[in-house]
Order: sequence, then structure tokens, then C-alpha cells
Amino acid sequence: MSFHFEVLKKDIQSGARLGRIMTSHGEVQTPVFMPVGTQGTVKALLPETLSELGVEMILGNTYHLYLRPGHQLIRDLGGLHHFMHWDKPILTDSGGFQVYSLGALRKITEAGVLFQSHIDGSRHFISPEIAVSIQEALGSDIVMCLDECTPYPVTLREAEKSLDLTLQWAVRSKKAAKNSEQALFGIVQGGMYPDLRKKSVEKLVEINFDGYALGGLSVGEPKEIMMNTVVNINPLLPFDKPRYLMGVGLPEDIVACVDHGVDLFDCVIPTRSARNGLLFTNHEKVVIKHARYRDDPLPVDRLCDCYTCRNYSRAYLRHLFMAKEILAMVLNTIHNVRFYMRLMERIREAIREDRYLEFKEKFLSSRRLIDRMTLK
Amino acid sequence: MSFHFEVLKKDIQSGARLGRIMTSHGEVQTPVFMPVGTQGTVKALLPETLSELGVEMILGNTYHLYLRPGHQLIRDLGGLHHFMHWDKPILTDSGGFQVYSLGALRKITEAGVLFQSHIDGSRHFISPEIAVSIQEALGSDIVMCLDECTPYPVTLREAEKSLDLTLQWAVRSKKAAKNSEQALFGIVQGGMYPDLRKKSVEKLVEINFDGYALGGLSVGEPKEIMMNTVVNINPLLPFDKPRYLMGVGLPEDIVACVDHGVDLFDCVIPTRSARNGLLFTNHEKVVIKHARYRDDPLPVDRLCDCYTCRNYSRAYLRHLFMAKEILAMVLNTIHNVRFYMRLMERIREAIREDRYLEFKEKFLSSRRLIDRMTLK
Repeated sequence: MSFHFEVLKKDIQSGARLGRIMTSHGEVQTPVFMPVGTQGTVKALLPETLSELGVEMILGNTYHLYLRPGHQLIRDLGGLHHFMHWDKPILTDSGGFQVYSLGALRKITEAGVLFQSHIDGSRHFISPEIAVSIQEALGSDIVMCLDECTPYPVTLREAEKSLDLTLQWAVRSKKAAKNSEQALFGIVQGGMYPDLRKKSVEKLVEINFDGYALGGLSVGEPKEIMMNTVVNINPLLPFDKPRYLMGVGLPEDIVACVDHGVDLFDCVIPTRSARNGLLFTNHEKVVIKHARYRDDPLPVDRLCDCYTCRNYSRAYLRHLFMAKEILAMVLNTIHNVRFYMRLMERIREAIREDRYLEFKEKFLSSRRLIDRMTLK
Repeated sequence: MSFHFEVLKKDIQSGARLGRIMTSHGEVQTPVFMPVGTQGTVKALLPETLSELGVEMILGNTYHLYLRPGHQLIRDLGGLHHFMHWDKPILTDSGGFQVYSLGALRKITEAGVLFQSHIDGSRHFISPEIAVSIQEALGSDIVMCLDECTPYPVTLREAEKSLDLTLQWAVRSKKAAKNSEQALFGIVQGGMYPDLRKKSVEKLVEINFDGYALGGLSVGEPKEIMMNTVVNINPLLPFDKPRYLMGVGLPEDIVACVDHGVDLFDCVIPTRSARNGLLFTNHEKVVIKHARYRDDPLPVDRLCDCYTCRNYSRAYLRHLFMAKEILAMVLNTIHNVRFYMRLMERIREAIREDRYLEFKEKFLSSRRLIDRMTLK
């Protein structure tokens, strides 16, 4: 099969790893951050722009694409890569998390999930086998197993029951996955219970996946629980397989989690924040609508090399945002995605040069400083 | 002064002219179509994209920029070109038409126009002198005189009164315009009354402007009246000055009016239609949301050389549009603007090769065919 992962280097002092994922759509350097392309587009950006920003892999949402325009349509039109004109790797989620988020609109049984479309209320059923076959139709490079996202908080008993279902589904997913061009990742659940997480890892490793994800995090639990899970569980995962922390996150979370050996991240934060006018820099939080930027001739970040910062003032970006112009979304998204890509470049460089801990300390203390400045 | 216009060639059989406008921001080939950049951006497009599409000049709306972010702010930030990162020519309107469109929210006196902002209801006053000074602050290459847009229908007496005001304002505008880097265009009014239109031309030519616009058209009058005005009035205008038909229009209107010597056009149709999912081609009208495009693997127009047609299917564009994705606006606008730019290229080529009438006949009959097909 064409999927392959290798750890190129481990940082001497920390768990951080530099790696490479190979797929039939090209290589990805890890640690990698994947912008989210929910509906067959990373909102507001052309695929060529994504490439220019340094994006090597994106995430597609199976739930959304299944409902609209439909996975069979996408397959008939040549697969998701061709459909959206993106020829680099794509990871698709299983739809499990989106269905979980539907709350009252879904019902989970051993067979699978019954749910109603958020678009038109129509009824649908997804099983582990169906989730795999949808992702096969989409033609993504990395396929995720359907899992049940264990909520927070939850009792031990409920978490155990939920984990057992996810593990059964993992077995069925593995059996269903036929396409040797696609990697299949298992998802570690178990909620906030270390023993369940450990059991989850053991069972998944037995099944033998191409990669492992930590799921059920960023669902409202205290950040400490997320970090504890990453710190305790990641070392149990096979060293030679990629580790994916789903739905994370803020720059500081990414930097902290790389320290414990996470290789893949995805999150809507850079793109969604951009559309809300929240711009990332290494020095301050820029809320572009603030009156203080009204006549500010400086770029968002003088040290940023993105197209937006090279060509536009904060005053112009504020104007576009206040006037609700589409270009505001485009320029802001370019900046934030580039911020994340530069962050990942710096992370990889620090690992390459065996100074990850030092980089992490500096980075986290500068983020704390920004937070304090913002509170004042 | 750096503004200069020359007619390079007149078509042998028709009134169509090939020309060139020179400004301190570069050259423009005429007949030219200017996409509209109302709020300091041609909606959804990067300036570099505009250039790639063949756009040589854009229109900026004085009324909108005056209100938000304010012309003084734009001046202090280096002028509109620098502010919006567009280094090619810009024509700004005077705000007269937008204020006219405010209806009950404006009051016109000899001194100028009192009006209320459509954004926050604040009260403002614009005189001919103020309109010139706002456009000087914006730093556009072509400045338009403040005029009163004569409505349709209107009595002869009212039209005459309105024209007299516009002519007085033209004298004052000419006196107020000081910046030798900027050209000043007068606006021919007079409603549907040929004698008033002729009087308007005579007086404006006496004042001596750098170019002349036909105003008060596309305000609800039958298309015949617009064409009659163009046909009868254009020949009265000085041959060696550019002629600008404001707010026009559809491809067929542009082709018909070039025949009578119009050099400049502007209109929101290509950009606004794009955002509404209406795409121009030479063979059919594409209303992208139609179910028939659901699984259509073809581009919008196989003969189109635009980025959108080279890389995306109708099925994908329909999906983006139905999903209300920002990229739908971007890709559709790219296509429509390119359609207009290719149309202008074909118009100029036909004039260059002395076959404008033939081109026009063919083009108009193909548009009629499209209209008939669409009715079926």
C-alpha cells in the first residue's frame, strides 16, 4: 500500500518527533497541522493559496460531504481531490464527532448511528462499514474509524460501555477497509479514565491500524484532562505509527502536545477565528474590528511573511471587516493559516535542532504574556 | 497633466473606436469595462486576480468610501490605490447617483445635497466642490463631476430644471478641480429629451472636460430610450475625448453601444450576478443552482480560459453555491469578470480588424438565441 510513515528524528530531551507521511498524493512533514475543509473547501481559500501557505494536508468532513453533495456524486466525479481541485493528501474523519454533536437528533445502537440531517431533517444511518465505504468513495488518503465520542463528564460505567462499542466498531471498520491506497486510523476513547484509555490502546494496537488518534478530547473537559491523556497515553502507542490529536487546537496546545509525541493536528480555530476577525500573531491578539486599528497603517504582523501582511494595513482589514466584505474573510484566513503553518515549521525546526523543550518554554511563556496583556 | 486619451483607430463602417487612456497609474485600452469596487474592493477578488483576468481599470464609489472608512483616512493612508493594493487606474464616481438612490433620505438644493447615511442615519452634505475634494483625497485617476441624476419618467420642465443644476455644478466642479494628476469628466444629463441632452453637451463642451459621460440612463427607462440617447448624443461629443456610459451593462448593451462610439463602461452586473450564481457564457445562461448541474462534470464554459473553468466542474460550483461557501463567490466572480474582459478583448479586436458591425450582428443574434432558449 502506498501509505507509509516514518519517524525521521526524535528530539533528545522530549517526546517530540519529526516524521514523514507518504501517500499516493504526496508527502507530508510531521508534526503537521491540517486546516479543515468541511464542505469540500477550506473556507475562503483557493487550493493554490493553501499550497502557497505551506499546507500539505487538509481534513475533510465525511458527515457534511455525505449529506451534501453526497459521496457517490463525489466518487462519480473522480473523488474528493479532483472534485475540489486539491491534489495533496486529505484525511477524512468518520462523521462520528459531527453526528455526536447533533445531540437529540441521533440515536446510537450497536449496529450504528441513526441521525437526522441538520440541513433538511432527513433520516440517515451510518455504520462502521458505511463510514468506511463513504470515505472510500471520497478517496481520502487517511480514513478514520467510526467511533462513539465519549462525552464529558461521564461515569466510569458509561465510559466503559461507550469504549466497548468503539472497539467493536474498530474491528468492523478494519474488516471493511479494502482500499490499499487508503490508510485506516483507529481512535482511542475511554473518556477521562486512564485505565479505559489504556485498554483502548491495547485493543486497537491488537487490531493493528496504520495510525492512532486520540478522540473524545476538546469536548468540554478541563484542559488538564486533555494534557494528562496525551501525556499518559501517547507513550503507549506504537512508536512507528503516526499519532493524531483530533480537533486540537490553539497554538499553545499544539506546542504542548508535540512535546508528548503528537504528529497530526486539525482544528477550525485558524479559519473560523479569521472569519470572526481574530488574527494570530506572536506578539499580541489582533481583534481587527477594534477602533484602535481604524487608522493603523501597519500590517497585522510586521514579522509575518504572508500575502496579507505584505500588502495590507490593519486599517484596510478593519475597513473590510466592518463593511462585511468577502475579501475580509479571504485576507484574514490567509494570515491565520500562514501563522499556523509557520508555527509548524518552527516546531519541526526546533525538533530537527534538538531544542524542542527550549522552544516550547519560550513559546508558551510568550503566549501567557499575550494573554495577560489582553486581560489588562 | 498625466491624463491623456487618444483614438487609435475608428472602425470603417461603424462609430466604434479603439483607443488608449494614459494615466499616472498606467495605460488602459478602450473600449474598456470597469468592474465596480464599491467599498475599496471588487467584491471577492484579490487585486492580483483582477490583473490576471485582464482588468485595467476599476470604479470606486465615492459615496461609500466617504462614509466608510472616510476619504480623509484613505488619503492619510496613501490614497485609494495604496489602501486597497491596486496600482492600476481607478475612476471614482461623484456619489451623485448613490445619493439619488437614497430617495427620501436626501434633499437637493442649489448648494448641494443633504443626505442621511444608509449605514447609521448620520447627516451629511456634499457640494460639487466637496465631491471633487473627496475624490482628490481618494486619489483616483478620473474624477466625476457631481450631477443630479434626472429620474425617469420626468416632465420637460423638471428635466430642464435638473439639467440647469447639473450644468451649474459642472462649472463649479471644473473650478474646484486642482489636481493635475486627475482627469475630470462632465456628465451629460437631460433625461429623455433630445434637445436638453444637446444643450447639455454644448455647455459641457464649452466648460471643456477631459472626458464626457452619459448619465441618467439605466434608471428604469425603456432600453430604446437609452439606445436613442447614445445614438443621438455620442456623435455630438468631441471625437478626441473619451465617452463613458455610466452603469451599463449587459453584454448585449455594451456591444450595441460601442457601435456608437462609447469608450468606457462600468456595471455591477458581472460581479453581482456571480454572487447570485448567474454565470455568463456565449452559449447559454448558467444558473448554477439548477438541479441539472448537480452531477455535471463539465466546466461552466468549455471555451473559457478562466481559472474557474480550467479547474472546476459545474457540479462543484453548484455544491459550493448550495452550501453557501465563500469560495462560490470567488470562483463565480472570477468567471464572470473574465467573461466581460474577453468580451472587451473581442470588441477591440473586431474594431482593429474593421469588422465591428459583423461582430456585433453575430454577437447580438447569439444573445437573442440564448434568451429564447432560456424562455423555453
